[in-house]
Amino acid sequence: MAKLSKAEVLKKAEQLKNWGRWGPDDEWGVLNFITPQDIVNAARLVRKGKVFRLGLELDENGPQRGIFGGRWNPLHQMLATGTDAVAGKHDVTPGLRYADDAINLPTQAATQWDALSHVFLGEQMWNGYPATLVDSRGAHKNGIEKFANKMVGRGVLLDVARHKGVPYLQDGYGITVADLDATASRQGVEVRRADFVIIRTGQMEQRLQTGEWGGYAGGDAPGLAFESLDWKRAQTLHVTKYLTKMAGAARDGLWPH
Amino acid sequence: MAKLSKAEVLKKAEQLKNWGRWGPDDEWGVLNFITPQDIVNAARLVRKGKVFRLGLELDENGPQRGIFGGRWNPLHQMLATGTDAVAGKHDVTPGLRYADDAINLPTQAATQWDALSHVFLGEQMWNGYPATLVDSRGAHKNGIEKFANKMVGRGVLLDVARHKGVPYLQDGYGITVADLDATASRQGVEVRRADFVIIRTGQMEQRLQTGEWGGYAGGDAPGLAFESLDWKRAQTLHVTKYLTKMAGAARDGLWPH
Amino acid sequence: MAKLSKAEVLKKAEQLKNWGRWGPDDEWGVLNFITPQDIVNAARLVRKGKVFRLGLELDENGPQRGIFGGRWNPLHQMLATGTDAVAGKHDVTPGLRYADDAINLPTQAATQWDALSHVFLGEQMWNGYPATLVDSRGAHKNGIEKFANKMVGRGVLLDVARHKGVPYLQDGYGITVADLDATASRQGVEVRRADFVIIRTGQMEQRLQTGEWGGYAGGDAPGLAFESLDWKRAQTLHVTKYLTKMAGAARDGLWPH
Amino acid sequence: MAKLSKAEVLKKAEQLKNWGRWGPDDEWGVLNFITPQDIVNAARLVRKGKVFRLGLELDENGPQRGIFGGRWNPLHQMLATGTDAVAGKHDVTPGLRYADDAINLPTQAATQWDALSHVFLGEQMWNGYPATLVDSRGAHKNGIEKFANKMVGRGVLLDVARHKGVPYLQDGYGITVADLDATASRQGVEVRRADFVIIRTGQMEQRLQTGEWGGYAGGDAPGLAFESLDWKRAQTLHVTKYLTKMAGAARDGLWPH
Repeated sequence: MAKLSKAEVLKKAEQLKNWGRWGPDDEWGVLNFITPQDIVNAARLVRKGKVFRLGLELDENGPQRGIFGGRWNPLHQMLATGTDAVAGKHDVTPGLRYADDAINLPTQAATQWDALSHVFLGEQMWNGYPATLVDSRGAHKNGIEKFANKMVGRGVLLDVARHKGVPYLQDGYGITVADLDATASRQGVEVRRADFVIIRTGQMEQRLQTGEWGGYAGGDAPGLAFESLDWKRAQTLHVTKYLTKMAGAARDGLWPH
Repeated sequence: MAKLSKAEVLKKAEQLKNWGRWGPDDEWGVLNFITPQDIVNAARLVRKGKVFRLGLELDENGPQRGIFGGRWNPLHQMLATGTDAVAGKHDVTPGLRYADDAINLPTQAATQWDALSHVFLGEQMWNGYPATLVDSRGAHKNGIEKFANKMVGRGVLLDVARHKGVPYLQDGYGITVADLDATASRQGVEVRRADFVIIRTGQMEQRLQTGEWGGYAGGDAPGLAFESLDWKRAQTLHVTKYLTKMAGAARDGLWPH
Repeated sequence: MAKLSKAEVLKKAEQLKNWGRWGPDDEWGVLNFITPQDIVNAARLVRKGKVFRLGLELDENGPQRGIFGGRWNPLHQMLATGTDAVAGKHDVTPGLRYADDAINLPTQAATQWDALSHVFLGEQMWNGYPATLVDSRGAHKNGIEKFANKMVGRGVLLDVARHKGVPYLQDGYGITVADLDATASRQGVEVRRADFVIIRTGQMEQRLQTGEWGGYAGGDAPGLAFESLDWKRAQTLHVTKYLTKMAGAARDGLWPH
Repeated sequence: MAKLSKAEVLKKAEQLKNWGRWGPDDEWGVLNFITPQDIVNAARLVRKGKVFRLGLELDENGPQRGIFGGRWNPLHQMLATGTDAVAGKHDVTPGLRYADDAINLPTQAATQWDALSHVFLGEQMWNGYPATLVDSRGAHKNGIEKFANKMVGRGVLLDVARHKGVPYLQDGYGITVADLDATASRQGVEVRRADFVIIRTGQMEQRLQTGEWGGYAGGDAPGLAFESLDWKRAQTLHVTKYLTKMAGAARDGLWPH
């Protein structure tokens, strides 16, 4: 993939950005596309009642091994244990023997959704809010808590690795518009407004099997190519990073949420 | 409510416990009752496409103010900010300006599900596993991660406060079997095997409005009375603590999960 | 104490500031006054071999109860316990049974030294370094680690509470130049260049006895009055906050380190 | 170095242990040897007024890279920054612009003293206290806070690497009694009751220069050989791990504090 200039990236960002589309006070972005009827329709699609866990385990074996930004893998600590209980430590309160714990994690640990406050364009974040509204006390606009009851809808898995007949895409591979369209076509699925698109590169399984994370958490893991920004469906979708990591432009934070 | 003796609590625990019901290696408990068809059926109940956020905010204003067990309200810290970005701190990597954060929380902060490893009966936890399987490195059995793809099904809200015509139940109030049945009857809803029952006491709203948490996180907040353990439906349900805190026996950790 | 205007505080800061005195690259401030011979002389003063612990305990009972700036009292967590050891958890490594722990604390917890990067005057910190050199990754100038081998010398305790014949000074009391001089005189001690002056208000003992911290960690605890900035000795001293908290100007961060 | 059997280690522990020597309630161990006069004498030894910093930096570049026991390198986080201040975030409180931070560290990070509660012999810790007195809430006996005003005295550096004419001792090397005696003799120093002995292996500098920590924090770094337990001076000393890591028996936690 040819290396993009900063000017090219900024030009595309200006061209595609949807700031102001839902008013100056909006903090939902493309999630505004999801109507209650979309949710009703999505629920009706449930046929088999199978539930899939999409996230990586939230533990010390994850990909955040200091590769970027002072992040770490989750630290898990116990506040009360069964060994304490059996040693009689909890018997001050009659009958109550218990375990308790705590977790300390960067929000980029394991698998996560990026908030609209996660990346900046110049001195602004999504919808034109000043970037300085994210300070040491948190994100005063565009925080992830704004999505707490918004992330419900139809999910579409595009299994690009399977379509291409490989166990996993290689580091540095940029998924093209042609890849996306061909995968959808092969699967007989149409990507529509308000869908949650999940792209499988196969790399997560491969990393888990080998125990070597490489650049998974912030390096050259396979992802969407810069051109995919122009995919006709991209502007109305929420695209997850779950099974993938984004290469190229997406990593510059300019994906039009 | 008359104070229970430890013997009464232990007797009831022995009488109701379902250890071994799904084999000696099970870590799901009553979640075993949920079939794929239950999930399909639950999905079909969606009529309006409204999404409710049930949890308390995961922030420093929560109810864990040192009332019990060394717990604390979540600590939120930034690893990268917009003020840094605007000050030019991120321009080492051209074009990438971002925010990043971390959170440190006891797993009992805000609103949460209790794992089957959370409480012990004597020297054992649910299904008879030794309590000592929960040590300083975590829960080696019955950890909450076992529920990662299991907590999906039909939810039933029993609005006990509304049924009783009060804005919220008072501290110390124990919800009786008669309360539960009357509330369900009034609402025209039947509680069935494999449902997730959510009981509303009204106290959460009241605490949020006043900013005074009192015993919400571990004191005498209203909850299910000891007799509710014998509610004919209780043995097949997952009962949430979301809108409530449990009084009486439930707090002794003997609720038959 | 009359409330100071911001203009008065800034005027005094400009008048007293010693930026550049030890060159543009200095990060030691008045610690430059301490010569090796001062340390030799200080060591010779040891008569009784008594050692005093000056700090508050670094635990969950301290004064950081959310009074200011998102600080908290230290959180102490175990990574390995004796109860685990006795339960046989450590016997994988033959013969090694151990305890281990971790601590999570704001650096303003308990008793601490303020770094020269702790407060700003306008857009600068001590010696004129830009305040923006303290970002989310830490203090790139004037960090406390610069003092690691510098805080050694003669200590002088000025027991102002004792001199004034009270068990402790009241909240809001500002210690005057006359108080300081009279206390030193009564004690027969002379404060000299390069001393570490420790001022006792008596409030720490009183807070510990009552268990009520009040404004100790960031409120109106007794401390040095604004006029003490002009004390003839102040410009060459390191004044500790150990037994006291500073009222007035010092709290504005303008004390001339 | 021949591999020791567990029986040999336990036999030596029984032979050398000084439990009860200062009564059943003692928590100071060999620090009891230090008299006030020893401290006065130590102070008189100061000739040059030079201060040395012995510890590793308490930061994310340290040796705790997950090699043992769920430890990590210190995590440093900012609660308030200069970039925030300059962006006008602190101007709610007129005139007060500041930086603030927090640190989260295992107590075995960087350089540290081991408490007498750190290792166990069977089901007991030093002085015969039950190991179960160290539970999820901390060490209820033999905590390091007992040493807060006790670690003052004469320090003796034995530069074993220099004596042996090498820049640093190799991994796995066990320092013998002959090494210790010859080094002291060459330096013209006598190790006496109540000294703090600091042993230099040279490895810390070498690790810092190469940036490769290897087994420094819990592996086969050079240290004291098992036989050094019988060194005639060992029973009255506090031996630091500062410039070294202990090999052999000391790592089994049986060094007679």
